[in-house]
Amino acid sequence: MKKIKVGIAGLGRLGRTHAQNLAFSIPGAELVAACSVVAEELEYAKKELGVANTYDDFGQMCCNPEIDAVAIVSPSAFHAEQIKAALKAGKHIFCEKPLAVSEEECIAIEEEVAKHPECIFMLGFMRRYDPSYAYAKKKIKEGAIGKPYLVKATGIDPDAAAEQLLSSGFIPNSGGIMLDMGSHDIDLMRWFLEDEVASIYAVGSVVKYPEFAKQGDMETACATFTFRGGGIGQFHVGRISCHGYHIETEIIGTEGSIRISPVPEKNLAMIYNHTGAVKECVGSFPERFAVAYAEEMKEFIKCVQEGRKPDIDVHDGTAATVVSAAAQKALETGEIVRL
Amino acid sequence: MKKIKVGIAGLGRLGRTHAQNLAFSIPGAELVAACSVVAEELEYAKKELGVANTYDDFGQMCCNPEIDAVAIVSPSAFHAEQIKAALKAGKHIFCEKPLAVSEEECIAIEEEVAKHPECIFMLGFMRRYDPSYAYAKKKIKEGAIGKPYLVKATGIDPDAAAEQLLSSGFIPNSGGIMLDMGSHDIDLMRWFLEDEVASIYAVGSVVKYPEFAKQGDMETACATFTFRGGGIGQFHVGRISCHGYHIETEIIGTEGSIRISPVPEKNLAMIYNHTGAVKECVGSFPERFAVAYAEEMKEFIKCVQEGRKPDIDVHDGTAATVVSAAAQKALETGEIVRL
Amino acid sequence: MKKIKVGIAGLGRLGRTHAQNLAFSIPGAELVAACSVVAEELEYAKKELGVANTYDDFGQMCCNPEIDAVAIVSPSAFHAEQIKAALKAGKHIFCEKPLAVSEEECIAIEEEVAKHPECIFMLGFMRRYDPSYAYAKKKIKEGAIGKPYLVKATGIDPDAAAEQLLSSGFIPNSGGIMLDMGSHDIDLMRWFLEDEVASIYAVGSVVKYPEFAKQGDMETACATFTFRGGGIGQFHVGRISCHGYHIETEIIGTEGSIRISPVPEKNLAMIYNHTGAVKECVGSFPERFAVAYAEEMKEFIKCVQEGRKPDIDVHDGTAATVVSAAAQKALETGEIVRL
Amino acid sequence: MKKIKVGIAGLGRLGRTHAQNLAFSIPGAELVAACSVVAEELEYAKKELGVANTYDDFGQMCCNPEIDAVAIVSPSAFHAEQIKAALKAGKHIFCEKPLAVSEEECIAIEEEVAKHPECIFMLGFMRRYDPSYAYAKKKIKEGAIGKPYLVKATGIDPDAAAEQLLSSGFIPNSGGIMLDMGSHDIDLMRWFLEDEVASIYAVGSVVKYPEFAKQGDMETACATFTFRGGGIGQFHVGRISCHGYHIETEIIGTEGSIRISPVPEKNLAMIYNHTGAVKECVGSFPERFAVAYAEEMKEFIKCVQEGRKPDIDVHDGTAATVVSAAAQKALETGEIVRL
Repeated sequence: MKKIKVGIAGLGRLGRTHAQNLAFSIPGAELVAACSVVAEELEYAKKELGVANTYDDFGQMCCNPEIDAVAIVSPSAFHAEQIKAALKAGKHIFCEKPLAVSEEECIAIEEEVAKHPECIFMLGFMRRYDPSYAYAKKKIKEGAIGKPYLVKATGIDPDAAAEQLLSSGFIPNSGGIMLDMGSHDIDLMRWFLEDEVASIYAVGSVVKYPEFAKQGDMETACATFTFRGGGIGQFHVGRISCHGYHIETEIIGTEGSIRISPVPEKNLAMIYNHTGAVKECVGSFPERFAVAYAEEMKEFIKCVQEGRKPDIDVHDGTAATVVSAAAQKALETGEIVRL
Repeated sequence: MKKIKVGIAGLGRLGRTHAQNLAFSIPGAELVAACSVVAEELEYAKKELGVANTYDDFGQMCCNPEIDAVAIVSPSAFHAEQIKAALKAGKHIFCEKPLAVSEEECIAIEEEVAKHPECIFMLGFMRRYDPSYAYAKKKIKEGAIGKPYLVKATGIDPDAAAEQLLSSGFIPNSGGIMLDMGSHDIDLMRWFLEDEVASIYAVGSVVKYPEFAKQGDMETACATFTFRGGGIGQFHVGRISCHGYHIETEIIGTEGSIRISPVPEKNLAMIYNHTGAVKECVGSFPERFAVAYAEEMKEFIKCVQEGRKPDIDVHDGTAATVVSAAAQKALETGEIVRL
Repeated sequence: MKKIKVGIAGLGRLGRTHAQNLAFSIPGAELVAACSVVAEELEYAKKELGVANTYDDFGQMCCNPEIDAVAIVSPSAFHAEQIKAALKAGKHIFCEKPLAVSEEECIAIEEEVAKHPECIFMLGFMRRYDPSYAYAKKKIKEGAIGKPYLVKATGIDPDAAAEQLLSSGFIPNSGGIMLDMGSHDIDLMRWFLEDEVASIYAVGSVVKYPEFAKQGDMETACATFTFRGGGIGQFHVGRISCHGYHIETEIIGTEGSIRISPVPEKNLAMIYNHTGAVKECVGSFPERFAVAYAEEMKEFIKCVQEGRKPDIDVHDGTAATVVSAAAQKALETGEIVRL
Repeated sequence: MKKIKVGIAGLGRLGRTHAQNLAFSIPGAELVAACSVVAEELEYAKKELGVANTYDDFGQMCCNPEIDAVAIVSPSAFHAEQIKAALKAGKHIFCEKPLAVSEEECIAIEEEVAKHPECIFMLGFMRRYDPSYAYAKKKIKEGAIGKPYLVKATGIDPDAAAEQLLSSGFIPNSGGIMLDMGSHDIDLMRWFLEDEVASIYAVGSVVKYPEFAKQGDMETACATFTFRGGGIGQFHVGRISCHGYHIETEIIGTEGSIRISPVPEKNLAMIYNHTGAVKECVGSFPERFAVAYAEEMKEFIKCVQEGRKPDIDVHDGTAATVVSAAAQKALETGEIVRL
């Protein structure tokens, strides 16, 4: 199989995860270029990952003919433009979620992607590639729970990270809790129910850190989704999980249900001490989804090698953004939003 | 301590649970009378429980001066009238939920109860007396999870009972899934959040047994509640749990959370076999809440002996009925109902 | 059914558990008499349990013709003599484990019991009546794990009780850790494997409280048992479980295995806090086996009413004592003891 | 960091795991050579892993000056000779367990390794690198459970593999169940207790497949180890786990305990169906220890790059073999073996 040469854009926390995977752990991939406006990130790529070519301009990186594919892990606001540039240069594209922050941009991207059928495009909803989620999907396909009719999801960032989150300036530019956190769950619901959202109702609260409200966001949001075919989705996202990073999903069907990770266990060890039997929990998304990030990239590289389209297409990105925006509107207005 | 002599009204499935407890397992109680319009139920009381006095008329039972207290486990439609008669006769009252099926009846009962402060009145929301729920409440009072701001609840009847439920004629007279199943969860939410419901949104579905729809009910219902002080409740009730009787509740606070029974385990044994590691689950509410039914009755008897009011008062019954009715309306209209 | 009138001997911690059950919770039983050399224990029986007849002499209690059965919960050293006296008086007998502290006494008791076939005799190995253990036995009988060939057991008293245990004078008179703690596990192994012990090897240690060694006992003991038919038993008993009272048993068969209580959970609640996901554990044997103590007594009363022999007979008591003594010898000598 | 060029010897099941890791997933490693007497294994290395240099003779592979290190995953009988050859050629060595099958060979290897301090030598007790085991060790070092005094271990191969195992000719050459299966647990006990074995007692059985006995081995073996400083080890190894590949370890200390993997869960999903709540289990050692195999190899490569000795040294291999042999003797004789 041909080695796929990849250039990465963005080397923040998640960018480094992808870059390390591409550099060391993805069969068939070679990380040959990195692009960032932060000089020290490029230093890191050179020194730690042995990346030969570094750029502070995405367009320039795309001009490098050696590069087969780009991994876009830059801030969401740049996605649309970078995807367009990469397609124009004939590169295959792995793009982190969200596809873009507005429906208009998403649709524009969809159109561009459609014009370049020779370029593989994959969106980074990594949860689908987590072994437990992939197992659940496979079991459902095999009929293990009959027809799925309800998905219940929980996604809560660790409380330990809340203060840093509030002081970092992230929140006002995050697109709101529904886009930043809920879009993963929205994608999972669509994936498990194999259907599109029809309506959304949402409520939220700020109880622990009033600063979330001051920055125009919620600390906690609960939403209910109806789907066109009658399915239901219910989720709870938040920022103040005291025990760690809590991602839990249950898919309920007519013949059974599958629940993933009610205890976000760090590993298989349990400590028995004077407080009881204790499972320590994962502390962050890179820890929880380390395998998923690698698996999705393996799949991307394989798709490129085999000229095959991945299961997650560009429209999944649009759908997640559109539904997230509607959920955000539902949250802000307190009214039912129908799509 | 004086033995409390009890007469029971209603000896259906739950009535028998209470009757057996009163006859054999409740310190300080003596089951001396039973009332039913079903002759064989009275036979059962005589032969199996050694009850001396049997009646087919509740008023007559109340005329028995030997009786200190009555346990009303009759169909909901009779509660109002029977409570009134018992109060008039000066009996202490334990009444199964729901208090009554309409707000008007509930308020009328509240007024009657208020006129008889000498009579102890307790409503049968037994979950509050389940050791795990009582433990959760105690821990929360002690500050273990900070300030509770969200309660998530699941209550699903076993699929194995669905066909019998549909053929028994129960559903059309049940008051709807929100009253029949949801009222327990509504009571728990009020109890844990120590607040009153402000608004409700609900959706439902019928996927497995179309007969539920034909009988005017839902198979599954998901609701979101907002509370006056900003708390949120989210629940999922249903009729088709394939693994057994599933009651699960999570109370989420600013410093932690408590989850009760994500696996409704039958006991402490796990079977490892060729399918994996398997926990068998409880099959019914009498099995799951056997201890709770005994504990609530012990508390009732103690309250009578000590002239003390129980934590659950008549207003909790009204609130559960009023909120259930509003939830039912939300479910039927698809609109947000504000209280 | 005839009410069975019971006199109890011994009102220490476990005696009170049995006395309360007999007084309030066992259908068909009536606690009519109590015997103790401790005056305040008799006061307790009168005041709290309403026991009419109290005695400081067991023989005298046996002379009361009203009494149908006796529950012997006195110190082990008195069992032989009290059983003999009760049999002579024609009383049915429930006797706490151990049957007696020496093989000779056990055999003498067996002989006496054999002479009085009209008297029901039951020994208090309550674990067999715990719902989880009874479930395991039932499942095994049904073939759920094929042929059992190995039983692994753990029984550890709470560390929180160790200092009191050491200062109470209990240890030097306990018969050693193998009789005091191991005899329950020995009974379970015999019960699950349906076979008799052939040999024993045991090792022990004292690591945390040197006082155990000073008092002639071990803090921890690990033993391996072979059974005549080829089965194997492996256990670990001890005194310093930091998380609570830990009783765990696994029965391993050719087609599966059953494990009981790897986490000795207090109830069905789990607390998620900054340390992780925490299950609080049971703190003592009365807490862990509350239901088992009631269930075994219900079975005893039923056996008396129905003139039926219980599954646990007097020989089970002898076997437990004989094997415990051999295990103690193995522990003390470090050599394999063959029976 | 310099890329470490590795040649692998042996491409059986475990050999392929290591080879794939070295080819694709180990930062700093490059798989440049493979050696096997099976032609199709070399084909596999060329085609699937892109290995340029293939050999049917280990000595010849060692002559390749490009190679920095060798990974020896050949049958145990070849380890001694291959290690010697590799040391002579100045190669760093990763060698799968067991070090060798006899004490004499082990000591001879130790001597050779001692003569070549310039060569990094690491033995493949991968469990130490499993995240859960590494976490347990770290927690113990931090004092989380006080002083460890007892290690209980279980290691059972899947029943599903038993027939293939028996027909493959593996058993008679495996060195017996104590070396083949027990040596991992022996290493873990030594590692957690930081002490050496003083005595061993063991019993075994053959219940399901008489063929194990015919081939001179046991199906199940239970052993008890005493350690010089008073620690105790207890293990159960076997071949007929019906639910999958079961590796479980508990380390018990004066202030708590840590248990690893009582349910050998396949992933974080739980299926609720008509049989209950089911966790599917891992089916094999490559599945269970996939991460551990990669982590130990990462550590080996890092040690080579940094000129650092790994925590597992050659003596750990000798100790495991010596104690396994003594355990095997204990198992065969039924007598206590003292070291």
